[in-house]
Amino acid sequence: MSLRISIVGSGAIGTYYGAKLAHGGSDVHFLMRGDLTEVRREGILVRGEGENFRVSNVNCYNFTNEIGPCDLVIVSIKTTSNGDLVDLIPPLLHERTMVLTLQNGLGNEEFLASHFGADRVLGGLCFIAVERHSKPEVERYAYGQLILGEFGRPSLPRTREVAAEFTRANVRCTVTEDLALERWRKLIWNVPFNGLSIVAGEIDTAAIINDENLRHLTLALMSEVIAAANKCGHSLPSDAWRKHIERTESMSGYKPSTLSDWAAGRTLETEAIWGEPVRRAAAAGAQMPRTEMIYLLLKELDERRRSR
Amino acid sequence: MSLRISIVGSGAIGTYYGAKLAHGGSDVHFLMRGDLTEVRREGILVRGEGENFRVSNVNCYNFTNEIGPCDLVIVSIKTTSNGDLVDLIPPLLHERTMVLTLQNGLGNEEFLASHFGADRVLGGLCFIAVERHSKPEVERYAYGQLILGEFGRPSLPRTREVAAEFTRANVRCTVTEDLALERWRKLIWNVPFNGLSIVAGEIDTAAIINDENLRHLTLALMSEVIAAANKCGHSLPSDAWRKHIERTESMSGYKPSTLSDWAAGRTLETEAIWGEPVRRAAAAGAQMPRTEMIYLLLKELDERRRSR
Repeated sequence: MSLRISIVGSGAIGTYYGAKLAHGGSDVHFLMRGDLTEVRREGILVRGEGENFRVSNVNCYNFTNEIGPCDLVIVSIKTTSNGDLVDLIPPLLHERTMVLTLQNGLGNEEFLASHFGADRVLGGLCFIAVERHSKPEVERYAYGQLILGEFGRPSLPRTREVAAEFTRANVRCTVTEDLALERWRKLIWNVPFNGLSIVAGEIDTAAIINDENLRHLTLALMSEVIAAANKCGHSLPSDAWRKHIERTESMSGYKPSTLSDWAAGRTLETEAIWGEPVRRAAAAGAQMPRTEMIYLLLKELDERRRSR
Repeated sequence: MSLRISIVGSGAIGTYYGAKLAHGGSDVHFLMRGDLTEVRREGILVRGEGENFRVSNVNCYNFTNEIGPCDLVIVSIKTTSNGDLVDLIPPLLHERTMVLTLQNGLGNEEFLASHFGADRVLGGLCFIAVERHSKPEVERYAYGQLILGEFGRPSLPRTREVAAEFTRANVRCTVTEDLALERWRKLIWNVPFNGLSIVAGEIDTAAIINDENLRHLTLALMSEVIAAANKCGHSLPSDAWRKHIERTESMSGYKPSTLSDWAAGRTLETEAIWGEPVRRAAAAGAQMPRTEMIYLLLKELDERRRSR
């Protein structure tokens, strides 16, 4: 009944959910590319409202062939490193291994499907604010839930099995019958907040939502995403932005992952969060001028920084 | 025949054209709010390709009532200080005084008309790259020409008289029969270049035009301006952007005035260059989503800086 799980990508998201699963009794194996000494000595510390625990005896590895076949591979590396997965994932696969991407934006399920077979692929939406302070420590600021779904098909018994594994680890988790729709619904948040956190001058969610001009722009971007999703065949209600705004207002300000990426000098996830939605919308005949503008600005800012 | 001229606003544009006119023999009086010692001692130095001269014995003043009535008032203060004109201009007026605004963007002729009468008002478009290095020195990097026109009517004999005054001073100057159209035509350049020079991270025209992403965005913004102008009743050809691009490519990179304003800590001309075009387009039923986005971002960046 218990799944052998590997976590590919030990940033904030991978480390947090992996630690939760391990703390809940799951059999978790972390791929951590880098020095393992500290994690082996200190374990992983998880802090946040209502939770404060340390996972000791962390199973961590530098190479996936040291981990070997698993029942569930959780993909949580930055989408900008997706190319690495072509070599990283094969050692983790047996015939029925599920590959679950918890990554941002659009196109990740498709990428995994094209390399490892669509049957294996699941996706998850993480409504969470979490930051990794140092290798062995993550802090959770707020969260809603984890939404899991199958790629291109309704849920299967195994989908609920994976959800149950998370639930047992005290992660609020639900199953969706329409993963693609939920991907777009999450973009309603990521497109404006992740983008404006850089383009409007390195500011957090509170600074965005409390400024009259940026709030106006946020709503315009949200409407653009909703219209594009619907043009792509989904059915998001025109006020689907409301919940996102309300939840963001109820939280204290925090840094979207793109701002953390920027601050840490990491390549930004411009293709997954902005580029791919703009391209899909264009293919369906929908314009996303504001989203495209963020896309082009972020690409340019990122490239310029990299070329310096 | 010779006009008594006052220059209200001694930034780069006002100082440059005022110096040219004075050097050409015109009777020019500069309003300079600030210390006059240096200008009185040093005069004004003008540098640029093919010209290098100093105007000595500059008529400069701290208050317009020291200047008294003129035949031509050239308004070249930042549009963000237009409110000051209500008190600055009356001492300069006699019954037939012309008021010529060389300011950026839309709405300046209307502002002057509402306070001093539409009959007096002319407007000018400065196709020039000029920077003021210190009070008594301006440097010209490139220029095309000065285009003069009457506010809300075809040219009059006096329009050509003013143009002749500039021509005599060796400023290439032409008269337009449709000032409002030329205002929009100039915005085709100002909306993208002045905006992206800040929003894309404090860069000059060459950095904008040589980056694939920003070039794409520049063209999209230019198309937005052309479509808005035409929706507002003008007739700009759909490839009106081409000349702007070609001219900018032929010049070495330089800082749009908005970038100079930003660097100097001055309030940005967000209303004249972006806000007013967006509002006029909206009133005519045209959307300018990218232009509006620059408008909102600049407003926010400027307000945030000011509140620090």
